[in-house]
Amino acid sequence: MSILIVGSLAFDDIETPFGQSFDTLGGSSTYIALSASYFTDQVELVGVVGSDFEDKHFDLLHSRNIDTKGIKKVEDGKTFRWAGRYHYDMNTRDTLDTQLNVFADFDPHVPEEYRDAEFVCLGNIDPELQLKVLDQISKPKLVICDTMNFWIEGKPAELKKTLEHVDIFIINDSEARILSGDPNLVKSARIIRAMGPKTLIIKKGEHGALLFHGEKVFFAPALPLEEVFDPTGAGDTFAGGFIGHIAKTKDISFENMKTAIIVGSAMASFCVEKFGTQRLREINKADIDSRIAEFVQLVNFDIELI
Amino acid sequence: MSILIVGSLAFDDIETPFGQSFDTLGGSSTYIALSASYFTDQVELVGVVGSDFEDKHFDLLHSRNIDTKGIKKVEDGKTFRWAGRYHYDMNTRDTLDTQLNVFADFDPHVPEEYRDAEFVCLGNIDPELQLKVLDQISKPKLVICDTMNFWIEGKPAELKKTLEHVDIFIINDSEARILSGDPNLVKSARIIRAMGPKTLIIKKGEHGALLFHGEKVFFAPALPLEEVFDPTGAGDTFAGGFIGHIAKTKDISFENMKTAIIVGSAMASFCVEKFGTQRLREINKADIDSRIAEFVQLVNFDIELI
Repeated sequence: MSILIVGSLAFDDIETPFGQSFDTLGGSSTYIALSASYFTDQVELVGVVGSDFEDKHFDLLHSRNIDTKGIKKVEDGKTFRWAGRYHYDMNTRDTLDTQLNVFADFDPHVPEEYRDAEFVCLGNIDPELQLKVLDQISKPKLVICDTMNFWIEGKPAELKKTLEHVDIFIINDSEARILSGDPNLVKSARIIRAMGPKTLIIKKGEHGALLFHGEKVFFAPALPLEEVFDPTGAGDTFAGGFIGHIAKTKDISFENMKTAIIVGSAMASFCVEKFGTQRLREINKADIDSRIAEFVQLVNFDIELI
Repeated sequence: MSILIVGSLAFDDIETPFGQSFDTLGGSSTYIALSASYFTDQVELVGVVGSDFEDKHFDLLHSRNIDTKGIKKVEDGKTFRWAGRYHYDMNTRDTLDTQLNVFADFDPHVPEEYRDAEFVCLGNIDPELQLKVLDQISKPKLVICDTMNFWIEGKPAELKKTLEHVDIFIINDSEARILSGDPNLVKSARIIRAMGPKTLIIKKGEHGALLFHGEKVFFAPALPLEEVFDPTGAGDTFAGGFIGHIAKTKDISFENMKTAIIVGSAMASFCVEKFGTQRLREINKADIDSRIAEFVQLVNFDIELI
């Protein structure tokens, strides 16, 4: 099953308490696509890059069977750049620099052969552009959407318009509180789902993720890790594993979404182990299966004894 | 199976964004005992109160079959008092007032008939007093111990001495980081367990709890609640449910500890629904079973699909 992914492609300068990494390939769609590529070989990317996005970067995506026909290369432009520094606790970070470059004029064009995509994953970009992408798709089976504080506060009306066309909305806990205006996450979930998305996933970083659907709620923890090396892209990697599992199994039931959240959490746990996308390019199916088995151990309990 | 509980008995003045409650029966051992009383009728309390601790307070404990022979009443003294105010997010609180009163001279004496207790739960008191209690017990099957920042920072040597005799140590995440000197909880757990306790439970408040034992780790979420009315005593209620389930099942295996953590989490989810111990006095077996079933729904997922 094909997954169409729209989002940023970027070069990041990352500083953590453990070291620094420069000109690291990043961006929301890069992480989503790499993560999803472990579950289906029909991953299609729509985005924009500059002339500094070299063949080796395309090769990296192609090595994971990611289709890059939808990536527009602006020859006289530069790729989006982000620089950030993580604090000692690795949960908070400061953005040191943002250079939109070619991303400032991004006008997503979905290639003809992508328009029948069954699964659409809208990475964190301007909600108007997210809607523009949906307008070009014929009849997706499922639309997943991410966003960030910048759009919630800067373009609330546009975001709400986009949300009317979204099936699964993924945000973090502080974003949920801002968007809903309520500090309680259960109430937030109800308020946000009334804006359109039937299903809401609230990411809580190292504290796991909550899945809300109908009157049901499911919780997946993050794996307790001894070393968190670089959290950049963990949320996008989570989304990629989630949609990857859904596309692979062709099952959009609540029960299967639970499993997909565990798969996404497992993928995110790899992401943070090394700088940038490095770990996401090294792992194999056996690594993923064994990581998922760790999650089963982590949350499984025997209730028969009670 | 009998559970011996040592800790504070107190009257609390509690202020939350939702209201105020004065002269509310509280204290660590009160919450632990009430919670454990739903799983065994052999709960024994050791503590100290003043003349303001009336018959109605004893009656309340007796109504849950809690043995109060070990509570010393100082006729010319006043019971320990605590006053606190919770912030808007309900995760942080300020202590407004602490009056130790009779608790300042607390010298725990374990009655003869309690000394063969199989399970001992040392609530948050001076680690020297915790050790003094253990010296009076013949041969407990399991010793559980709680503490707080005040003792970790004020009496680290005494605490470490006590920990050498503890099987299961329960602390929260910030306490674990202070005691271990390491911000990473997995590393913290290893460092703290080297101090003595084979098993460590790290409570993360609304973010659940982690159980470390050998090379194994288990995670239990907190139930996502729409209304958190008063978090006072939730951690002690958790401990009471945990030890209650262990005592009821007489099984100290890691597998059963997992179930006990879920039971403790279920009990804590009741505690926060009303002021003080109120909710803990209203519930019944069916309420508890149905709450535990909610936890199964919350974390259960089907891995066969992968």
